[in-house]
Amino acid sequence: MTEFDFIRDHLAPLAGPEGLGLTDDAARLTPPAGHDLVLTKDTLVEGVHFPNGMYGADVAERLLRTNLSDLAAKGALPMGYMLSLAIPPAMDAAMMAAFAKGLGAVQEAFAPLKLYGGDTVKTSGPMVVTATLIGKVPTGQMVLRSGARVGEDVWVSGHIGEGFMGLKHMLSQRIDPPPTGEALWRWEEAYLRPEPRLKIGGLLRKVASAAADVSDGLVADAGHIGGASGVGVVLKLPAIPFTTGTFIWADGQADRLAAKIQLITAGDDYEIVFTAPPAQRDLITHASRELDVPMTRIGYTEDGTGVKVCDYADDSIPIASQGYTHF
Amino acid sequence: MTEFDFIRDHLAPLAGPEGLGLTDDAARLTPPAGHDLVLTKDTLVEGVHFPNGMYGADVAERLLRTNLSDLAAKGALPMGYMLSLAIPPAMDAAMMAAFAKGLGAVQEAFAPLKLYGGDTVKTSGPMVVTATLIGKVPTGQMVLRSGARVGEDVWVSGHIGEGFMGLKHMLSQRIDPPPTGEALWRWEEAYLRPEPRLKIGGLLRKVASAAADVSDGLVADAGHIGGASGVGVVLKLPAIPFTTGTFIWADGQADRLAAKIQLITAGDDYEIVFTAPPAQRDLITHASRELDVPMTRIGYTEDGTGVKVCDYADDSIPIASQGYTHF
Repeated sequence: MTEFDFIRDHLAPLAGPEGLGLTDDAARLTPPAGHDLVLTKDTLVEGVHFPNGMYGADVAERLLRTNLSDLAAKGALPMGYMLSLAIPPAMDAAMMAAFAKGLGAVQEAFAPLKLYGGDTVKTSGPMVVTATLIGKVPTGQMVLRSGARVGEDVWVSGHIGEGFMGLKHMLSQRIDPPPTGEALWRWEEAYLRPEPRLKIGGLLRKVASAAADVSDGLVADAGHIGGASGVGVVLKLPAIPFTTGTFIWADGQADRLAAKIQLITAGDDYEIVFTAPPAQRDLITHASRELDVPMTRIGYTEDGTGVKVCDYADDSIPIASQGYTHF
Repeated sequence: MTEFDFIRDHLAPLAGPEGLGLTDDAARLTPPAGHDLVLTKDTLVEGVHFPNGMYGADVAERLLRTNLSDLAAKGALPMGYMLSLAIPPAMDAAMMAAFAKGLGAVQEAFAPLKLYGGDTVKTSGPMVVTATLIGKVPTGQMVLRSGARVGEDVWVSGHIGEGFMGLKHMLSQRIDPPPTGEALWRWEEAYLRPEPRLKIGGLLRKVASAAADVSDGLVADAGHIGGASGVGVVLKLPAIPFTTGTFIWADGQADRLAAKIQLITAGDDYEIVFTAPPAQRDLITHASRELDVPMTRIGYTEDGTGVKVCDYADDSIPIASQGYTHF
């Protein structure tokens, strides 16, 4: 399969009108009136961000879903994306077709997301795939990392640690005590097909003073909000939401506290951590039920810098590394 | 140097206000009123698109310049870009700083181009670097590949073949007959720092029915216009502009015709090939002088498909491969 065949047969059917049939040098986007554009770009490298040789639909899904998570954290709605794919020697025509299927599946799940354009090249090394996602928010309403104030609540959507457990499983690490099938399936899904929390965009634009998606780890990403906003962040470890399966795993470790710290610093959660004034508590709790997205109050902001993780008694728990750093 | 140090010390100073200090998950772009956005994305892989181990400013310059060339072909003005950099083990802190210097040099040369955001990751394999460029054109005025009509002229800016000769030199291939220092310098510059023809954007929007930049080869890219427009393209080989040094090289080969065919199919020219009605000839010739950008009429469009390359007597010259295919 040549580049042109791949583009014509597998990528062109994914293109929106902005992509001009993928036969031009560039895409053309007429910006939606009354909106700002939100741009985000994430790169996945084989052997770093996904297991070696995993060349099919799963990587495509993960790429778009993690990028969509960035848009979700900003209160944005997805529009389209530019794709770059560096194809390794062992990726054959069937794997390339499967990769395109994965893109298509995410586009269907998050309509009207469309492919706008990009570049496909070959590489002698690991597969490298990048997407630039383009989303929109009503003008001036993008939720920044830098808007948190002292005395606000810290919230998180969903549950923490499932992506980490899924990665453990993907890497064939022994998980002990042995999980239920239900727990294992949830972890795997959470890792491979994280759910970008686009449903809560409207709520975030209304109540959140700051937000970020949890990719580097809950502690690190809460810290990014604190750092950008100039406030300190306190997280209450007992308040942080884990699913039953994840909780049982942590509880079964020799050092339970260390296991929980691992869960909240591991990353790959793609949940949204956000700050909001206490006056918004009822609204958030109500929206959580309406939207069927768990939202849990896990801490607060204070004068100062950095992130403190506390137990029930408000005693600080020392943490060696706050989360994933990329190199 | 950690990722955060690299971003804070070397990339953040390159960011425009859209980049929010590179401390957020995403960039925010308020679209310019009365304009369409033009998006293009190119990827360079070490060992495929540039020589192994070439980790400094040169790759950064080439990346942005080749992407800017796509914007130039569409009649667009550059605004900003999203960058993805997969850093190989042998790329040290000094090389990363040099890479950022290269980005900065191009931003200065093509102001108001600014960094909006992106992603930096590590890889165990070759360096892979991608940029998504964002430009603007007045609404509805993007120059497409698909607008050519039968009976129009085909034009090209600048000179053809210098990028190819520069690559030969970069790859330490023997160049015979030996070129002058002037010729060698021009070739090297053309390969490393191709000049995106942004200066002719206004002219293209006014006169061009279709345009593309010459990256895959003059014949292939003229063919892309023909294919997208549904017309045949005839190129007159004796009319195609070469610099004296390039012409002397071709003339010194055992098979002169084969050498010239090589020059017009090799690619890496980053000139603009475009079509325009014959009524625009005077305007284009005048603009060429005004803008100090050579523009040469090299053929015409006709009923049919594909590209024919002809000699003076209008006899067709057979060509085995029309240009670079990416895999």
